[in-house]
Amino acid sequence: MRMVDLIQKKRDGHALTEEEIGFVVTGYTQGTIPDYQMSAMLMAIYLVGMNDEETSQLTLAMARSGDVLDLSAIGGVKVDKHSTGGVGDKTSLIVAPLVASAGVPVAKMSGRGLGHTGGTVDKLESIRGFRVELTTEEFIRNVNEIKLALVGQSGNLAPADKKIYALRDVTATVSCIPLIASSIMSKKIASGADAIVLDVKVGAGAFMKDVEHARQLAETMVRIGRSLGRQTVAVLSDMDQPLGAEIGNAGEVREAIAVLQGGGPDDLREVSLALAAHMTVLGGAYPDFDAARAGLQQSLESGAALETFARFVAAQGGDAEQIRNPDQLPKAEREVKLAADEGGYVEFIDAEKVGLAAMLLGAGRQTKEDEIDYAVGVTLQRKVGDRVEAGDTLALLHANGPHDDGLAMLRSAYRIGPKPPAAKPLIYDVIQ
Amino acid sequence: MRMVDLIQKKRDGHALTEEEIGFVVTGYTQGTIPDYQMSAMLMAIYLVGMNDEETSQLTLAMARSGDVLDLSAIGGVKVDKHSTGGVGDKTSLIVAPLVASAGVPVAKMSGRGLGHTGGTVDKLESIRGFRVELTTEEFIRNVNEIKLALVGQSGNLAPADKKIYALRDVTATVSCIPLIASSIMSKKIASGADAIVLDVKVGAGAFMKDVEHARQLAETMVRIGRSLGRQTVAVLSDMDQPLGAEIGNAGEVREAIAVLQGGGPDDLREVSLALAAHMTVLGGAYPDFDAARAGLQQSLESGAALETFARFVAAQGGDAEQIRNPDQLPKAEREVKLAADEGGYVEFIDAEKVGLAAMLLGAGRQTKEDEIDYAVGVTLQRKVGDRVEAGDTLALLHANGPHDDGLAMLRSAYRIGPKPPAAKPLIYDVIQ
Repeated sequence: MRMVDLIQKKRDGHALTEEEIGFVVTGYTQGTIPDYQMSAMLMAIYLVGMNDEETSQLTLAMARSGDVLDLSAIGGVKVDKHSTGGVGDKTSLIVAPLVASAGVPVAKMSGRGLGHTGGTVDKLESIRGFRVELTTEEFIRNVNEIKLALVGQSGNLAPADKKIYALRDVTATVSCIPLIASSIMSKKIASGADAIVLDVKVGAGAFMKDVEHARQLAETMVRIGRSLGRQTVAVLSDMDQPLGAEIGNAGEVREAIAVLQGGGPDDLREVSLALAAHMTVLGGAYPDFDAARAGLQQSLESGAALETFARFVAAQGGDAEQIRNPDQLPKAEREVKLAADEGGYVEFIDAEKVGLAAMLLGAGRQTKEDEIDYAVGVTLQRKVGDRVEAGDTLALLHANGPHDDGLAMLRSAYRIGPKPPAAKPLIYDVIQ
Repeated sequence: MRMVDLIQKKRDGHALTEEEIGFVVTGYTQGTIPDYQMSAMLMAIYLVGMNDEETSQLTLAMARSGDVLDLSAIGGVKVDKHSTGGVGDKTSLIVAPLVASAGVPVAKMSGRGLGHTGGTVDKLESIRGFRVELTTEEFIRNVNEIKLALVGQSGNLAPADKKIYALRDVTATVSCIPLIASSIMSKKIASGADAIVLDVKVGAGAFMKDVEHARQLAETMVRIGRSLGRQTVAVLSDMDQPLGAEIGNAGEVREAIAVLQGGGPDDLREVSLALAAHMTVLGGAYPDFDAARAGLQQSLESGAALETFARFVAAQGGDAEQIRNPDQLPKAEREVKLAADEGGYVEFIDAEKVGLAAMLLGAGRQTKEDEIDYAVGVTLQRKVGDRVEAGDTLALLHANGPHDDGLAMLRSAYRIGPKPPAAKPLIYDVIQ
């Protein structure tokens, strides 16, 4: 088999076979297929497309390109969750203990990552002593005992996806649904999920800007999951403005704790409950969504979910006292107010700019070597649709270093107008 | 400017500007743009296309990526000729002295090359002593005195094209008209042509298998030439079977001499006269095609063209005695007959297989390091449409080494049937 012939086949609009896709993925991972042939193939896939069968085979080949976690020592249906990402998205911190509190095992592998704030691992590391380096034995024991454990992503998880993603990033082949879908699903399958709930974000602050494209991506992933024997549900949730009020690592943990205490912002609680409800239905803890949602709501109100979170944190070396008393989490030296220049209604909050403001304060990494300041970030005091008067505080910046650039960026994120905008749904659709 | 943005622009169907194309070509030639980005760009161009303006700019950028010959010291309009290549195509050996004999300067740069037989340079080197290493002064002096000189292709002629072509070859992006057209035209423009005649071959033995695609390529090249100020004419000529009877280096020189003596095969003479006539019209030696063809026919009959060829060969160190007496050119040890198994009409001669037979005998190079045997090759004694009886000689192999594989290949090239096939035109069209 020759790579040039396979590129030509795809270029000419034909579907690649399972064997051919395996050859491409294995050859590229092992380095026998060079970057320049793979990038020509990726552009051909971008422009010609891939059918469902090809996309599933690509997913499986990438999942199998490295370690595949064996979670068979954990009883029950292991349900994983994935978010396509957005600003202020701390749902994993809530959903994981909430699902675990319903008795469904959550054996989660999470990344750090570049971006406006850290990844889930970074957020959790703002808790004193918390560590994600667990042995396989600790990981499995903790899941069996507490129903929840979280480890950092293994270096050898879907290495084909990692290598292909890096190439897509520099060859303008990122925004291609079969490639996005197979990338996400390959990691979930390699990390041992029996079933998967996907949070596909839609809106100005998300990778998918409109519902139509988000739906296409969601449907593709649900079909991949089904064809590979993993029940998959996708929730299309709004990311036109940041989720919740907090953007920044310790701040997001504090806000997650507020939800786990039965409070917190409505939007964050609702999206978290919806995701957790689908997960617990797939995990067999509840017969249907409504029952699950009601049970989980109860778990928030009773403090059961918070208790699971505290036990989980303690089991991974973290200071559970900071969970019961979140004021003890890292706090920045200074609070800087962003005041409204004029009165009116908040028409739009540009999530990307809010994220950039947090990054400028030091909440995220631009390169792998950057250090995160867990304490800094942004609190949004007014969200879209809120009435404001000139001089009202729109948001707070939590700063340790210089804050002028962050403040200017945050100011540019708010748009105030004379009328409240039409309300948008929090959840557009559920694909299953 | 970032390459990834330009790939995205082309991917999304937009035209690249002159400045952007310059950035891509310069960056790739200098190595600041890596292969993997260029191959994604090439695949995007392959699938999305390029308009005329882009194709012309690509041509110019590649032409300017290395040395551009300055032929201003040569008086008159310098008309170059290019063939898209085929088996038995020795027209350059005839056309160059024929055009020169009409007083139009031919300052030709030719390649060696891989393939069934050598390139024009290799063929000429079958003449004892002939050399293509001329100083610029010798080259210009010879053109001014004899109207004809030929040098080997400079290492730094359109290096961008060389590098891009090598990448296209391994990324399934060869058969793309804007890329083919700009590749050919960039080399002609870098080698200093004022006007260009293109011999676009059509048929089973050519890169372009049908008239429609050949016409598209021809039209694209003619438009490029016009937009860059070079009058360009393209002749669509038949390559469904080999041109003439000889395939092999010294054999092709002998056959060219036969045409220059006023004889030789009709098809070879007609195509050569047509190409030379268009060249001399562009060069201003004749008012129109018919006058040119008549004048050039006279030049063949009078021996004027042959005399120019002999002077040219002598001026480049070659033994002109071999031109006047072509029996002295290299001859193989053995002549092996290919006899017809059955009677009938020659329906088809697969030019590629005839070429492969010559290569198996040693007439061509498979790798740059291979040595050519000038003496070996094939003589076709029967061509398409000829009546044969069982046992008649179809062709001769001229061999020095083993010939079994070559004979088997040549046998498989002939198809004999009960009826003569419909005659095909020798020249399908002229685009100007």
